Amino acid sequence: MEFVYETAPTRVVFGRGTVRTALPGEIDRLGASRVMVLTGKVHQSLAHTAVTPFADAVVSFFADAEEHVPAPVADRAVARARDARPDLLLSLGGGSATGTAKIVARDLRVPILAVPTTYAGSEATPVWGLTREGRKETGEDAAVRPRTVVLDPDLTDQLPRTLAVASGINALAHAVEAYWAPGANPISSAMADEAVRALAAGLRGVGPEGLARAQAPENALTDPVGVWAGTPTAAGEQLLYGAYLAGATLAAAGSGLHHKICHVLGGAFNLPHAALHAVVLPHVLALNAPAVPAVAGRIARALDADEAVSGLRGLAASVAAPRTLAQIGLHFRQLDEAVDRVSATLPIDNPRPVGKNEVRAVLTAAYGERAA
Amino acid sequence: MEFVYETAPTRVVFGRGTVRTALPGEIDRLGASRVMVLTGKVHQSLAHTAVTPFADAVVSFFADAEEHVPAPVADRAVARARDARPDLLLSLGGGSATGTAKIVARDLRVPILAVPTTYAGSEATPVWGLTREGRKETGEDAAVRPRTVVLDPDLTDQLPRTLAVASGINALAHAVEAYWAPGANPISSAMADEAVRALAAGLRGVGPEGLARAQAPENALTDPVGVWAGTPTAAGEQLLYGAYLAGATLAAAGSGLHHKICHVLGGAFNLPHAALHAVVLPHVLALNAPAVPAVAGRIARALDADEAVSGLRGLAASVAAPRTLAQIGLHFRQLDEAVDRVSATLPIDNPRPVGKNEVRAVLTAAYGERAA
Repeated sequence: MEFVYETAPTRVVFGRGTVRTALPGEIDRLGASRVMVLTGKVHQSLAHTAVTPFADAVVSFFADAEEHVPAPVADRAVARARDARPDLLLSLGGGSATGTAKIVARDLRVPILAVPTTYAGSEATPVWGLTREGRKETGEDAAVRPRTVVLDPDLTDQLPRTLAVASGINALAHAVEAYWAPGANPISSAMADEAVRALAAGLRGVGPEGLARAQAPENALTDPVGVWAGTPTAAGEQLLYGAYLAGATLAAAGSGLHHKICHVLGGAFNLPHAALHAVVLPHVLALNAPAVPAVAGRIARALDADEAVSGLRGLAASVAAPRTLAQIGLHFRQLDEAVDRVSATLPIDNPRPVGKNEVRAVLTAAYGERAA
Repeated sequence: MEFVYETAPTRVVFGRGTVRTALPGEIDRLGASRVMVLTGKVHQSLAHTAVTPFADAVVSFFADAEEHVPAPVADRAVARARDARPDLLLSLGGGSATGTAKIVARDLRVPILAVPTTYAGSEATPVWGLTREGRKETGEDAAVRPRTVVLDPDLTDQLPRTLAVASGINALAHAVEAYWAPGANPISSAMADEAVRALAAGLRGVGPEGLARAQAPENALTDPVGVWAGTPTAAGEQLLYGAYLAGATLAAAGSGLHHKICHVLGGAFNLPHAALHAVVLPHVLALNAPAVPAVAGRIARALDADEAVSGLRGLAASVAAPRTLAQIGLHFRQLDEAVDRVSATLPIDNPRPVGKNEVRAVLTAAYGERAA
């Protein structure tokens, strides 16, 4: 056994209603008096409500965060921050809001307090990403890892069901890939076990069966599902908790082929981030599982399944997760370009050696019927 | 689900030989140029060898660390540090060496690089302890948590078997108590699962059976046990890894009745620290298990046992851990005083309400036959 494991200073506050009950205190705790809010259009009014108790401290309100963090948007956020001179960035939103705050933190060295509204998990990592002219740049910088994270399942419970499912599987991808990522170590793998367990439990709670059970009148109050029926549930808590932990796992272990594919395709073809992860993950797992049977066994156990690949496919199917690249907007004529773009980033550290043939096989299988 | 979870900046380097291969680089990485070494008599020559590659940077060498960190010893270490003006404290030894460095760090705000030689786990925590006039004072201070930890199983493999066993069960106590400690949260409990699993696996590997197997000629090279036979083994690695993780778990969750009892008795009667934990743990677990059946089930699974209390007793017996307070040096006439001293620290947050009667019951059972 040989490993290096690093932790960063982070404070996580988890609980229903914490965006109201804990956020003001957490702002104080960080000693902030000049807060810049970063959010997207969809969460603008939520953000306004959230900052009401400390409205006097808000020096800027940036509500233009966009998916994949386009460079022009990030540039505008940085320019706004230069003018406003915040001492804290408060991001409220999904990976796009957190990601925009991260670019500001990277350039101006201002700490972040993150309030996620999806299962992106970006709030747990020192990884920033930026899309410039169709290419996703990523990097690591300790300064972009949020110092405080407020996790309020009441917020993520508001996600539209399709996005929630894709986002949950996106989170699962962080944990699954952590088992074989370059920095994998016994501690990150133990965290991955727990993240996969929580995410699978959460996803099962929102699958069609879980949803039907929750909506049945006799179960409305007691069944721990129904997050999308508007009832606060244990499933929604498990998903948000698992998503944070999966992000922390990725932060501890790094990432590999799966994330490389998703970054390249997401940046190049503007595919929906979470859905893209949901489509690609089973194919990368199928490629690698035979090469790492102990890991595959561990994933299966955490999924509460007999076998990892079929267990993941079954879970994805049970929540009607998107299954093909075609379905999420990749054109068939873009497939060759996709293969070329991913192959151009090789070599990559992966349990099975990966060349252009393996990339083609994974992407062809992920594309769906027409390509196969 | 509601919790707060905090992590601190720590870098852990685990591997055989790292005290030689990694230590100099880790000193550099911390930018240290004035190193104060803190160790105990028993590790004096090991410490001299370890610092040879950066001997020019060593400004002080304190080799007087003692168990329970007596205040006069700590005062001398602080005085030496004031004179030497180190920019890094390098502790090399068990909890006593780490603990002495922590008092210096607490008073002079100098960071620590810890190289543990036992399974004390102190290298993972912000907890300091000091014994002044027979009373153990403890406190928490982020400044005393080592910034870098070098975990070299080649060092801990040198532990005398009886001390190794007691120290391993001491570590187990950190993880077990973390399930019900005041700051327990899902992440610390998942870490506790992994710590208990690793420690139980390690302890099983050094029990009489494991030892006999390892010493049999046909198994000498392949059997993953035999750590005390001088063969580097997976058991020794699991123990050190589990001990670190158990310390980190305690740091994340806090501690409770078990640690309170051990601190009070250790300070008042100068009982051997690790052995004391090994004696007391089964009795505190037996007190609490009925009140927290889910936790007890989890501990049983992590121990790979049918039931938590009997599983722990069986594991302790299989490694011939000390079983009674009498056996480790408490006099029968001191038992009443022990009960009084522990009771004076009540109330305490514990799954089962604890009054003087419960304290007496636990200590009487722990004392052994004569008291029962």
